[in-house]
Amino acid sequence: MPHKRLWIPGPTEVSEKNLMAQAQPMIGHRESSFTKLYTGITDKLKEFFELEESHVIVHTSSGTLWMDITGRNLVRNKALAATCGSFSERMYETLLACGKEVDQYAAEWGTATKPDAIMEHLDESHDALTIVHNETSTGIRNPTTEIGKRLKAEYPETMYIIDSVSALGGDMLLPEKDQADLVFTATQKAFALPPGLSIGIISPAGYERAKTVDNRGSYTDLVGLIDYYKKKGQTPSTPAISLLYALDTQLDDMLEEGHANISKRHEEMAKFTRTWVQKHGMKMFPEEGYESITVSTIANNLEKSIADLNKELATRNLHISNGYGPFKEKNFRIGHMGLWTMSDLKELLWHIEEIWNL
Amino acid sequence: MPHKRLWIPGPTEVSEKNLMAQAQPMIGHRESSFTKLYTGITDKLKEFFELEESHVIVHTSSGTLWMDITGRNLVRNKALAATCGSFSERMYETLLACGKEVDQYAAEWGTATKPDAIMEHLDESHDALTIVHNETSTGIRNPTTEIGKRLKAEYPETMYIIDSVSALGGDMLLPEKDQADLVFTATQKAFALPPGLSIGIISPAGYERAKTVDNRGSYTDLVGLIDYYKKKGQTPSTPAISLLYALDTQLDDMLEEGHANISKRHEEMAKFTRTWVQKHGMKMFPEEGYESITVSTIANNLEKSIADLNKELATRNLHISNGYGPFKEKNFRIGHMGLWTMSDLKELLWHIEEIWNL
Repeated sequence: MPHKRLWIPGPTEVSEKNLMAQAQPMIGHRESSFTKLYTGITDKLKEFFELEESHVIVHTSSGTLWMDITGRNLVRNKALAATCGSFSERMYETLLACGKEVDQYAAEWGTATKPDAIMEHLDESHDALTIVHNETSTGIRNPTTEIGKRLKAEYPETMYIIDSVSALGGDMLLPEKDQADLVFTATQKAFALPPGLSIGIISPAGYERAKTVDNRGSYTDLVGLIDYYKKKGQTPSTPAISLLYALDTQLDDMLEEGHANISKRHEEMAKFTRTWVQKHGMKMFPEEGYESITVSTIANNLEKSIADLNKELATRNLHISNGYGPFKEKNFRIGHMGLWTMSDLKELLWHIEEIWNL
Repeated sequence: MPHKRLWIPGPTEVSEKNLMAQAQPMIGHRESSFTKLYTGITDKLKEFFELEESHVIVHTSSGTLWMDITGRNLVRNKALAATCGSFSERMYETLLACGKEVDQYAAEWGTATKPDAIMEHLDESHDALTIVHNETSTGIRNPTTEIGKRLKAEYPETMYIIDSVSALGGDMLLPEKDQADLVFTATQKAFALPPGLSIGIISPAGYERAKTVDNRGSYTDLVGLIDYYKKKGQTPSTPAISLLYALDTQLDDMLEEGHANISKRHEEMAKFTRTWVQKHGMKMFPEEGYESITVSTIANNLEKSIADLNKELATRNLHISNGYGPFKEKNFRIGHMGLWTMSDLKELLWHIEEIWNL
């Protein structure tokens, strides 16, 4: 169907096949056919993320719900929230809004969260650390593996929570390798699906921690979600069945391409974009060496109108993203994740060159 | 597409048109095209429910999230939770799990929650009252209008929260007429849509109450949801766009049929079912005069195997529901809501007669 193809950091482009997968008739969520669908999905996720012992929950929500789940289940008293942009700040604010004590370590927007800085700010009083893997607002990619190693060596009991909403499935992160207690994402990013489902991968220690935290609620109760899955292979409340159909289909394709190959494809697109940026006298916004491989954030040092660019791109059925919040017109962002390939990207960049006479 | 047609209390049958509506390409949720879609939907809901001053929020979740929202936003210190079955008990448990004090007034399963009983159990210490409009587990329909009248006459400040998950849109309830501060539902019931969206209708007083309650979280924050809508006509986090496409389409059909006509159609199906039950020597499970018009719960006094009935119905592409929880095989339930018409119902009941030699 002709439509504006999405090169924004989410929702991303969805294949016709996956759009159509949603259109299958409903089934009862207490039937064995549903259990087969849902456990099939969690099994595929376990295979894709090479999980040996983690719990996998697919919830009906945007990724943001998992910030509430973090605050309601994994922070017992006090967390350190490492922030470097709008979405990691949303986690900080959510933990506060769940009534927990929170220290904030704020890296400047456009710079990364470094292991040394984390360790300087952490102390015995923190029972959880939250970081963002891929900060959608700035295009920063944080070194989650190194942070996990340092954290768990010094504070093995401290929960390690990674928001990977705009990267997981595209930029290779293995939750158990990173020693994370919770990694979460949503389906409208690197999974190339419609929004409405979120995925949480929880360590055994994360599950145990949740059991010790009071007032977890119902929809946000990690223990309830995991126990229901263990007991029945289902969800405690009615899930978005049509979106699960699409996730099931997409996971087959992701497993066929392979996690490492997918990540390599995203890395190639990011590198190609950075070379293109340099070639045309532009600059990347994020700190060198920490550029996202799913969302390239480019400084608008050529001082073009990004709004006008998008208007012209729209006539060509294309759509990119302006800078986030305070960086509107100062940056622009290209979300090259999910379905997109190098040849798609080259076509997009050719259109931008053509419009801007580069 | 041939498939098992769902006569369960949700998910209910979805039309081919609405299934296909989901399959449209994604749009950015910060684009004006999304604002148009989302505010179009809320406007249609305001028209359908004859709302003058209420806030309408469509959230990405099952209905259960609104129990958390109730606990996190509308109960300041202590609630009275009126229960009469499994789903109203879930509300009671959720409020407790949100760390609020809760008194429970439990009507026996199969009986209704009466205004007199509510008023006997309410006192000045309760700042919120929760009831269920249509108790899915027992097929009871509670008199929400009379309860609202009595409650607000005596305790005008007490929040009035109605769970209408398995009735709203089918059994006519007008939130402002009932003087409710929150009425919520989910789309896989009388709205005849796939699950994944929930709808909350909030009074101005409900919004004001939420502002005074601490630790509301993010995804569960009613003030954040309403303020974002007021400011931008959008949702604070990425919503289930494909499900919104289907809701938009379905609302056109619901407005065309008309709320009163829809409710009449449901009432006719319920009455016909009750007559059929009596004719064949069966009994209704719910207390007389309080039978749901969306879910008929029938006592299995003929002592048939409901599991076997469903096996045979499956070969005819039909599916009904067993009794809920402790009432498995003791009751069976027919969810005649959403798309279904009298002629569909007659066909279903004919099949049951045929299988059971009635």
